[in-house]
Amino acid sequence: MSSREAAPGLRERTRRAVHREIAEVGMALFLDQGFQETTVDQIAEAAGISRRSFFRYFATKEDVVLGDLIDRGHRVRAALVARPLREEPWVAVRGALLALREEAAEPETELRVGRMLFQSSTLRTRHLEKHLAWQEMLVPVLARRLVDAGDLDGTSADHRATAIIATALTCLDVATETWVRRDGDVPLEDLWDEAVAAVRALPPT
Amino acid sequence: MSSREAAPGLRERTRRAVHREIAEVGMALFLDQGFQETTVDQIAEAAGISRRSFFRYFATKEDVVLGDLIDRGHRVRAALVARPLREEPWVAVRGALLALREEAAEPETELRVGRMLFQSSTLRTRHLEKHLAWQEMLVPVLARRLVDAGDLDGTSADHRATAIIATALTCLDVATETWVRRDGDVPLEDLWDEAVAAVRALPPT
Repeated sequence: MSSREAAPGLRERTRRAVHREIAEVGMALFLDQGFQETTVDQIAEAAGISRRSFFRYFATKEDVVLGDLIDRGHRVRAALVARPLREEPWVAVRGALLALREEAAEPETELRVGRMLFQSSTLRTRHLEKHLAWQEMLVPVLARRLVDAGDLDGTSADHRATAIIATALTCLDVATETWVRRDGDVPLEDLWDEAVAAVRALPPT
Repeated sequence: MSSREAAPGLRERTRRAVHREIAEVGMALFLDQGFQETTVDQIAEAAGISRRSFFRYFATKEDVVLGDLIDRGHRVRAALVARPLREEPWVAVRGALLALREEAAEPETELRVGRMLFQSSTLRTRHLEKHLAWQEMLVPVLARRLVDAGDLDGTSADHRATAIIATALTCLDVATETWVRRDGDVPLEDLWDEAVAAVRALPPT
């Protein structure tokens, strides 16, 4: 019985290992020769699998990039859950997004990934869709905090949490695009802080 | 000579009239029987043109909806240009977005268009892409205002203007989704104001 239970576990671990391997090989090729210029056949060959096998793991070439972004979203969510409850929303969201920095690659690699994202319109679109996926993961966590912190009802808390999370991700996008355009001459966090400050600035009195 | 110059003008006017006709017929069919359920062939037939002619005017079925949204972006841009220069950014952007209300259809029709947008993932994606197109139209106008109003240099003004415009559009998206989910029981403007207020709220002191 226990060996029968172990079997799917092993299969699942193998599946994940192959998935990760394809993603790594694919990202290396994209960075080396460009996203548009890299074909699924090239990725499959470099990973030592068939084209048919590739499509068992990824629906599209874009998903090789997107898969990693979804994983990152899960880590941001875990970081948001772990933030102290007394923190006000923007402090908690900022702290959670900083979890992305811990596993970031070398700045030069991150810049190359960024350039790739903003140069391909299909990747750009997938990137926008990623926001929606992150939003769905993060909004319930923040809405819960807003309800616990004050006298908001659930409907209003959902709406407000969605506005804050969606704005935080929009500012991350804006900051990343500026950061890529400026070839990383200012830290990404500073550009995010400047974007959020511009949005939240009070009019001069 | 003048008649040769007039010819393209007439052709262009005809092209625009056919474009508008296809869009109107398409939207009527989408609202009547659903976006997914409506085929390009049905739109072409209802508009009295061939399938081949349809694709001379629209690259995809989604563009029948998107085309109208791009036109709306031009009108928001014109409204932003017309805002008094002394207005602070959020007041000017809010005023410009309200230009959308002037030409809005009946609330019930707007709700049906909204439901259509959020139910189809391909339309949802196009809707996100529309944001980028609006952003490109609106950012230079706001950046110019920021430079004129203060001592920001152009680089910083672009970044800040992008953050504000992108957030305003994100809040419009969030407000529209809440509005559709709540079947329009609260005015869309109130939900946009609540979203922006949530984003800009200062922590309690």
